[in-house]
Amino acid sequence: MFQSFDVTSRPEDGPPRLAALRAKMAAAGLDGFLVPRADAHHGEYVAPYDERLSWLTGFTGSAGFCAALADVAGVFIDGRYRVQVRSQVDLAHFTPVKWPEEKLGDWLVEQLPEGGRVGFDPWLHSVEEIARLRETGNGSGIELVSSDNLVDAIWVDQPAPPKGQIILHPLEHAGEAHEEKRRALAGKLTLRGEQAAVLTLPDSIAWLLNIRGSDIARNPVPHAFAILHASGELDLFCAPGKLSEEVRSHLGANVHCQPTAAFGPALRALRGAVRLDRASAPVWVADQLANAEIKLGQDPCILPKARKNASELKGMEAAHLRDAAAMCRFLSWLDEAAPAGGLTEIDVVRRLEEERRRDPLLRDISFETIAGTGPHGAIVHYRVSEESNREIVPGDILLVDSGGQYADGTTDITRTIATGAVTEEQKACFTRVLQGMISISTLRWPAGLAGRDLDALARAPLWRAGQDYDHGTGHGVGAYLSVHEGPQRLSRVSDTPLQTGMILSNEPGYYREGAFGIRIENLIHVITAPDLPGADAREMLAFATLTWVPIDRRLIRPEMLSGPEREWLDGYHDACRQRLADLLDGSARTWLDAATRNL
Amino acid sequence: MFQSFDVTSRPEDGPPRLAALRAKMAAAGLDGFLVPRADAHHGEYVAPYDERLSWLTGFTGSAGFCAALADVAGVFIDGRYRVQVRSQVDLAHFTPVKWPEEKLGDWLVEQLPEGGRVGFDPWLHSVEEIARLRETGNGSGIELVSSDNLVDAIWVDQPAPPKGQIILHPLEHAGEAHEEKRRALAGKLTLRGEQAAVLTLPDSIAWLLNIRGSDIARNPVPHAFAILHASGELDLFCAPGKLSEEVRSHLGANVHCQPTAAFGPALRALRGAVRLDRASAPVWVADQLANAEIKLGQDPCILPKARKNASELKGMEAAHLRDAAAMCRFLSWLDEAAPAGGLTEIDVVRRLEEERRRDPLLRDISFETIAGTGPHGAIVHYRVSEESNREIVPGDILLVDSGGQYADGTTDITRTIATGAVTEEQKACFTRVLQGMISISTLRWPAGLAGRDLDALARAPLWRAGQDYDHGTGHGVGAYLSVHEGPQRLSRVSDTPLQTGMILSNEPGYYREGAFGIRIENLIHVITAPDLPGADAREMLAFATLTWVPIDRRLIRPEMLSGPEREWLDGYHDACRQRLADLLDGSARTWLDAATRNL
Repeated sequence: MFQSFDVTSRPEDGPPRLAALRAKMAAAGLDGFLVPRADAHHGEYVAPYDERLSWLTGFTGSAGFCAALADVAGVFIDGRYRVQVRSQVDLAHFTPVKWPEEKLGDWLVEQLPEGGRVGFDPWLHSVEEIARLRETGNGSGIELVSSDNLVDAIWVDQPAPPKGQIILHPLEHAGEAHEEKRRALAGKLTLRGEQAAVLTLPDSIAWLLNIRGSDIARNPVPHAFAILHASGELDLFCAPGKLSEEVRSHLGANVHCQPTAAFGPALRALRGAVRLDRASAPVWVADQLANAEIKLGQDPCILPKARKNASELKGMEAAHLRDAAAMCRFLSWLDEAAPAGGLTEIDVVRRLEEERRRDPLLRDISFETIAGTGPHGAIVHYRVSEESNREIVPGDILLVDSGGQYADGTTDITRTIATGAVTEEQKACFTRVLQGMISISTLRWPAGLAGRDLDALARAPLWRAGQDYDHGTGHGVGAYLSVHEGPQRLSRVSDTPLQTGMILSNEPGYYREGAFGIRIENLIHVITAPDLPGADAREMLAFATLTWVPIDRRLIRPEMLSGPEREWLDGYHDACRQRLADLLDGSARTWLDAATRNL
Repeated sequence: MFQSFDVTSRPEDGPPRLAALRAKMAAAGLDGFLVPRADAHHGEYVAPYDERLSWLTGFTGSAGFCAALADVAGVFIDGRYRVQVRSQVDLAHFTPVKWPEEKLGDWLVEQLPEGGRVGFDPWLHSVEEIARLRETGNGSGIELVSSDNLVDAIWVDQPAPPKGQIILHPLEHAGEAHEEKRRALAGKLTLRGEQAAVLTLPDSIAWLLNIRGSDIARNPVPHAFAILHASGELDLFCAPGKLSEEVRSHLGANVHCQPTAAFGPALRALRGAVRLDRASAPVWVADQLANAEIKLGQDPCILPKARKNASELKGMEAAHLRDAAAMCRFLSWLDEAAPAGGLTEIDVVRRLEEERRRDPLLRDISFETIAGTGPHGAIVHYRVSEESNREIVPGDILLVDSGGQYADGTTDITRTIATGAVTEEQKACFTRVLQGMISISTLRWPAGLAGRDLDALARAPLWRAGQDYDHGTGHGVGAYLSVHEGPQRLSRVSDTPLQTGMILSNEPGYYREGAFGIRIENLIHVITAPDLPGADAREMLAFATLTWVPIDRRLIRPEMLSGPEREWLDGYHDACRQRLADLLDGSARTWLDAATRNL
């Protein structure tokens, strides 16, 4: 079982740890210390070694930070975690702060006297983050001071940094040799007059070198750093034990493997223009580049990584079909078991993971399965634990958002299921969410537009009913890489033009607090729009679907659908049946036939 | 007749005028001179006195400029005017340049030697424009030099600057006394620590002082400048003859009327922080503020002017009803006359203006009527002249975009009319445009979104068929003021959040070059979304409709419409009939009944 249901933190552990941290702060002459939920690679998941925020405060969310001062400790959390934080931290010692509405800079200025000194670990904060913080504090007399990590200094049983093995990602799935990728990127560096690019994002390094890692859960990436030179040669820095002979041989003579400790000296030896990712490069890295001219920009791997090639798409399609078969077996079981009552959310998560594990290519789940029944469905990032576990009462609406990491691809799918009789109003909400999801699925648009330009189309059916959802419509997805991957998004904050090969989720939702939650999610990828009679002579793009799992017909009010919407749904269900029939048998096959009947 | 069909420029006039300008440039030690289509107020229309660009080059478009150098004269024109410019200028002497793709700064650097000196009239270029130009030329050695206007120096029979009378805009229509408006704005200046704001936009001054002018066609604004002080007092600068005793008395003791010549000394006397509109303030004005601290921002009238109050909306509604009656009489006549053949575009424009002129409150048309039949419909900014005039062949699709300036409001409406049998494909295109227009009309959305976030909804029905239109979906509209008014737009380039009271056009279209054009345009205004059962507890906005004129049912394919779309259309037509029945009689009334039948 990949997923655990343990309660991993206890509020009562926080206060003594905070007291110990404050003693260290005083000894170091600091009035505050920042504890982010981050590691040196600034990804979404961190290793147990880097779980400083939850160790110190009890708060286990995937984003946020603590600003510990001598007499107040602010825990900055966003809208998703406002409720959760209150049950996880000791409120007598930690103060939740609404973030990003409240800016850390302003809060520090308010809390600290002039001349206050706040320490931070330069590995755990990006250049951009600290620059912005210094700008806000400008003129306040508050100083931000690079420091040793004071949490590490008091965390006696801190787990060791991960030393996961690196494995090959075969050319069959990668589609392009790492020599070719390095040559192409090196050509771009040369064009811009840059001597080198420093890579600190593990998924960039994994993509570039056609390797995968096992340092953190859910994301098959290695903790490593790299310097790509304009010559195309690359220095790779990681614990030597991670690299087998097979991997070293795959990397070849122009990839120079060095221990992590060699990263600093190599940075300090760089001269000329050096590219550094504005959003994710740690301050520590920038500090070492005193002899070079830093060019803040985008990590050069990000855009080519996002535009999947034919082999990557082929692997994603194959993984999605097998994942769909697992989902169908799970849904077939659920439809039989749920109406009888007695099932819990944990039962659901277990059964779904079991179905996925029957696939020998499954390497991990792609994130903790969200299985929320009834009111839990309205908690967008709900993760069930032994404490929160809830029985599925027949008639509940159950929301299940899950995915797998397979050797050939990453999946992410949400289905919302009726476990008994539901109200007409719930069906109306579900149908509107479905209409938004169909609107994106069937879209064509002129090349050049970004997610922001399209996001409204997924929401308009809800908007017309006075409803909406407080999350983006879609995120980028990697190919056997991170399930959340940039730069593309379907969101009102995304200005990145969509390009062919980009994979996105399409997941509108609707949440009624304390009652129920609805989300329908397929993965889609951007293609050149197919020819159409009567079309203008202009370049247009469209989406193709990767996910083939029936959508619960029991939650739909057919009379709300337009002709083309109904056609899309029937066609989608026909395609599910045709693609999955041979992968299923017995009761799952019978279930598929019933679930994909035309409306 | 407000509209004229004269050909106002001839290509052969350009070359001798260009030669004379070059002689003046040489005498002034200049290697180039810029001739924009602009006046000191940077509005959309200019007085004959300011028609320097068309006088020099022959080009009569509403945007563009000429950069006259010693041996080349570039005429910079945007996509709308690429065809028109080639028939209006002598191509042996003037070189069309694709703008904004080609930047003036880059072009100058390319054409001129290092040390080249380019003159410009500091009244005719904004602070922002010249700053950006200087930035591009930075390091090229090319110098931009403030100069007398060299076109004025050679234009012997240049018309005099306009001296149109200023009239009152009654409180009944303005809704708020100018004393109140000045007090409110002064309060905001004080809050920001600004001593004064310089106003150079005539529609800002007209709105703020509840006056209207007659200096230029189509826009009822006075050419004037103003300084609003943080005390609430205001200095108004214009030709004294424009101000009657009645207007002076309306303005009162705290509005100090001065001749235009006093503007410079008054600017030079300003001290402290002075607000200046970034986009429209002439360089000349900024140059006079040597003793002040210039705060570049937005003219403080722009936002309150855009948010119409109840009286302004009441006037707009009344004007729209009378305008709709005129449109119906026109459409009724057209339906009878067009099938017989022999009508021309000019006949159509004349008849429509005659129908509008029957209203004693009509002061002007709000722009030159666009009446394009068949292929002319595909020219987005077509203006018929004696030369271009085309016969309406029965079966043509005729596009008519027009509006009126009434004492109580400004209208802008487009209807596309079938003058005989049309193809099923033309109907399909029309129906898609209609679906986009309905989508905007029926929208609700969460407060805070801008035009960019909504624009796609008007286009999606076309996009799905591989079609689109190359203009924005909507522009802001004034209340008996400019028919194009910012800052709000329905456009992928507009980041201004929509707010209640803002008026916009809703005008998707479709254009097939050489064949036909389609556009459907209503004016709408932003309201707080009405209560709806089942709606979230979130602030949502919606649009209310101002325009009530039937949409040609002969161009619709009903089977393409969804149930709600059909309901909207039938409901709209019912409302047209109910609102207009009493304003029409005879054949127009009969026509209305037929045109508003349910689908």
